[in-house]
Amino acid sequence: MDWIAADWGTTHLRLWEIDADGGVSKRLDSDQGMGVLDPSDYEPTLLGLLRNRLPEGRATRILACGMVGARQGWIEAPYSAVPIAPLAATRAVKAPTRDPRLDVHVLPGLSQAEPADVMRGEEMRIAGVFASEPGFDGVICLPGLHTIWVQVSAGEVVSFRTCMTGELLGMLSERSVLRLSVGSTGWDANAFAEGLDRGLSRPEALSSSLFTLRAESLLRDLGPEASRARLTGLLIGTELASVRPYWLGQDVRVVGEPDMAEAYSRALESQGVAPKILDSEEMTLAGFRAAHEALAAHAH
Amino acid sequence: MDWIAADWGTTHLRLWEIDADGGVSKRLDSDQGMGVLDPSDYEPTLLGLLRNRLPEGRATRILACGMVGARQGWIEAPYSAVPIAPLAATRAVKAPTRDPRLDVHVLPGLSQAEPADVMRGEEMRIAGVFASEPGFDGVICLPGLHTIWVQVSAGEVVSFRTCMTGELLGMLSERSVLRLSVGSTGWDANAFAEGLDRGLSRPEALSSSLFTLRAESLLRDLGPEASRARLTGLLIGTELASVRPYWLGQDVRVVGEPDMAEAYSRALESQGVAPKILDSEEMTLAGFRAAHEALAAHAH
Repeated sequence: MDWIAADWGTTHLRLWEIDADGGVSKRLDSDQGMGVLDPSDYEPTLLGLLRNRLPEGRATRILACGMVGARQGWIEAPYSAVPIAPLAATRAVKAPTRDPRLDVHVLPGLSQAEPADVMRGEEMRIAGVFASEPGFDGVICLPGLHTIWVQVSAGEVVSFRTCMTGELLGMLSERSVLRLSVGSTGWDANAFAEGLDRGLSRPEALSSSLFTLRAESLLRDLGPEASRARLTGLLIGTELASVRPYWLGQDVRVVGEPDMAEAYSRALESQGVAPKILDSEEMTLAGFRAAHEALAAHAH
Repeated sequence: MDWIAADWGTTHLRLWEIDADGGVSKRLDSDQGMGVLDPSDYEPTLLGLLRNRLPEGRATRILACGMVGARQGWIEAPYSAVPIAPLAATRAVKAPTRDPRLDVHVLPGLSQAEPADVMRGEEMRIAGVFASEPGFDGVICLPGLHTIWVQVSAGEVVSFRTCMTGELLGMLSERSVLRLSVGSTGWDANAFAEGLDRGLSRPEALSSSLFTLRAESLLRDLGPEASRARLTGLLIGTELASVRPYWLGQDVRVVGEPDMAEAYSRALESQGVAPKILDSEEMTLAGFRAAHEALAAHAH
């Protein structure tokens, strides 16, 4: 292995071992996220996952992004304020390590003053889009626990907006009264379209539209699959209504896990936008490779 | 004791022992709600709480409202469809009991066909308002885990709308990423007003406005008390925007626990409405007394 890419979020750690040709020789996944780690836990966590595969006699470079660089993470990598290029590799912060085989650099996230907004980790997917489509000018939609809409131009992030849609969907379907109506699997394209339409046309009514789902399952036997698709459509439709300037008449790339990327893509298509879905892991890795090159160039 | 009123919801059971003059001689609280009970558990739960205080030699009437009458409760008391008087006491369903000292009647909730909506238990507070202000014509706002807005006229419930605001507030402040920013106590009237204003003027932007709270606590040190008040204002403001016909130019009564009743009342006042707050327990008991009288009259 030549170097290692680490996506270290609140609830997960994902490592890719990269060989000299830039290929992935191994991928490792762990649930040792920032949320369960103290600052002194990070180095042992890395060593535990990598076991005895770290080359001896030299320090292997590890590039890390995500909540690992938050104030309550391993070491704070202060946000870079937009407008700025998504990769501020030269602002990476070296993490304190004892093992001479480790050379860990934590990459900063991005911040925006007005409206106040922040991201940590998602900037890697943005850098990946730039790497795969140099000069891309338009909007990047990053679905996830939080969905981030990013306006990019001339290689820079101009502005962005974070929506808590994914987290709302998870809490509502697993913990609220809607859990009694909403299934955990399955899909119903018509119900999704209905929810989307409702969210787009009455976005202000979310709080009451949500309970209508429960009432319809009681009074009209709306099934668990239809309820799930309707809820997803309702939340995405409400989100689309609130970030309209981010997609109306825009060239859009959607980069996220397949299910949600597909849902956002269908939603945008219903509004006359023709988004292109890009693979999330591929974009993350392309971003890491660009960061690795920038850091190497900076050192020389 | 002459008879017993039982508010039996998903997570709680509240019993009031009523004497012959209609006064409360004892109140009992339990966490044995519908959510943790099988149909065969209800009678033992009642007997356990009432111990040996039930008079011998006669059946004591117990009137129960709430989720106890749901399909998955003790025995189903089918919804009464609006428009209808809030108390359909004559439609009460007798629960199956073995102990000769028990005579349990489960009162039905209300349903609405379009938009689909249901309530179970809250109708008792509506009946209480009618008992305390005969002929009241206007809107009753019932804050709680779910807030219900009820249009009443000529002694009947004309229409109603349920908003999941209270449940959203609980989940967002305790389980989402906002829990890191939002305090569990304290209040900040200015922050509440700011949130309210944001919710009322940009109700469609809820999903992104929520994350702004987190970003402002990171970038601008928005404190836990201010975050809590802002979140509450934002959710109530968004709700007010979606149920505008229920309060604009209306005569409004707010019946709920003090904190939330006060928050809704302040929010309405900021919009030029002069709501009157009525005590929640008092209205519930007034509703039960009216139900008891109606049932007694029906039997004769």
